[in-house]
Amino acid sequence: MIQIEAVPGIGEVAPGCDIGAILADALRPMAPVSGDIVVVTSKILSKAEGRRLSLNTIEPGARATEIATAIGKDARLVELVLRESTDVVRTGRNVLITRHKLGLVMANGGIDASNIGTDEADMVLLLPEDPDASATRLRADLRERLGVDLGILLSDSFGRPWRHGVVNVAIGAAGLPAIIDRRGDIDRDGRVLQMTQIAYGDLLASAAGLAMGEAAEGIPAVLVRGCTAEGDAPASALVRPLAEDLFR
Amino acid sequence: MIQIEAVPGIGEVAPGCDIGAILADALRPMAPVSGDIVVVTSKILSKAEGRRLSLNTIEPGARATEIATAIGKDARLVELVLRESTDVVRTGRNVLITRHKLGLVMANGGIDASNIGTDEADMVLLLPEDPDASATRLRADLRERLGVDLGILLSDSFGRPWRHGVVNVAIGAAGLPAIIDRRGDIDRDGRVLQMTQIAYGDLLASAAGLAMGEAAEGIPAVLVRGCTAEGDAPASALVRPLAEDLFR
Repeated sequence: MIQIEAVPGIGEVAPGCDIGAILADALRPMAPVSGDIVVVTSKILSKAEGRRLSLNTIEPGARATEIATAIGKDARLVELVLRESTDVVRTGRNVLITRHKLGLVMANGGIDASNIGTDEADMVLLLPEDPDASATRLRADLRERLGVDLGILLSDSFGRPWRHGVVNVAIGAAGLPAIIDRRGDIDRDGRVLQMTQIAYGDLLASAAGLAMGEAAEGIPAVLVRGCTAEGDAPASALVRPLAEDLFR
Repeated sequence: MIQIEAVPGIGEVAPGCDIGAILADALRPMAPVSGDIVVVTSKILSKAEGRRLSLNTIEPGARATEIATAIGKDARLVELVLRESTDVVRTGRNVLITRHKLGLVMANGGIDASNIGTDEADMVLLLPEDPDASATRLRADLRERLGVDLGILLSDSFGRPWRHGVVNVAIGAAGLPAIIDRRGDIDRDGRVLQMTQIAYGDLLASAAGLAMGEAAEGIPAVLVRGCTAEGDAPASALVRPLAEDLFR
């Protein structure tokens, strides 16, 4: 049986705080064992890593200003999105979908302006610089503090082009298979499986999303027990490279 | 705490079998209570509803033959995909993504040629004709047999344009909120939430996917306990209408 439980007692995460210490303290009463998985929002890692920024420090260039006017967004935000991205995928009224430098196709370059825990209205939060590396560091830190080998998943919310509503996906992972490759496996009737890769990290992130509730409730970490998938693959393995993008 | 558990003991599902009776027998030892959710693959509903078809009965038309030649697929399968679809979204080498009549943008019009439990190599399986209605019927049936009000979710596997691997999504739902609308809610800092709809049905489907394992193992039903989201919305509410499709 798989069990999914919110990690209680994580308060507001301040810039530069010791996120490993905070998580270890919150996890200890839950008595996690090796193989359990901690899913944390990328947002609290971003905060801990000091990825906050004031839009007031951003000078929008000509392209950002042009896009901002066309779609009705803050030109400073658009400028920042462009700096975080390699490619503009689609624009529309109040819609800006780009390919982030990490390869993630998402709204607003992953820049978050909600629930960042500040009174300053112009503060925004960028994604962690290298989410797989953040997960790997956090895993080593929690191993040291708790004496167990936990899987770590950094999750974020993505919209989808053809479906309403957001789902949680994996943007960083360590100590678990973010993707499981079944190429060559045979089904029960002896046919080669058509869908040969499972986005296991995204399944985990979405499962944790059930316990995170909505942003307004602010549950930033979830413990998942009882998953048995073996292997190790980073969340970057979930990114479909530009060369395979049918929608470019 | 949310608990996710495979429903054991569901064997091969034959065309026209009584899926409600099979599921009730399998669920009874698990003692489900009202509010628990049963996630079943759309595949077993398709089988029970007799949605099997032999490709040998399909005469490909000119358009299907043309596409099939271009992308390297069986022209009879392409013909069937076109009949199931309103729109071809993208084609590529061995890739055929369409908008299914139900509004679902997916590979091969949701037609499944793996694990359909037959020796006949040309048999394929279509999606249930009306998955929300299938879920509603199954819910009423299980209420009668088990005396509890379960939520029912029909799941399927979807690829994504910018991410590797498949995830499980909701294509039919009854007795649960497939989508949760938070429009107008305020976050902890007093800002209006930007991401205001949660694809709760897709989160549930993906969570169940963790316990379904891979197709080769063939676990077609999962019991999810402890979810507290209230409300009722069909899976069709997850479909983004064509008019909102930025990628057309």
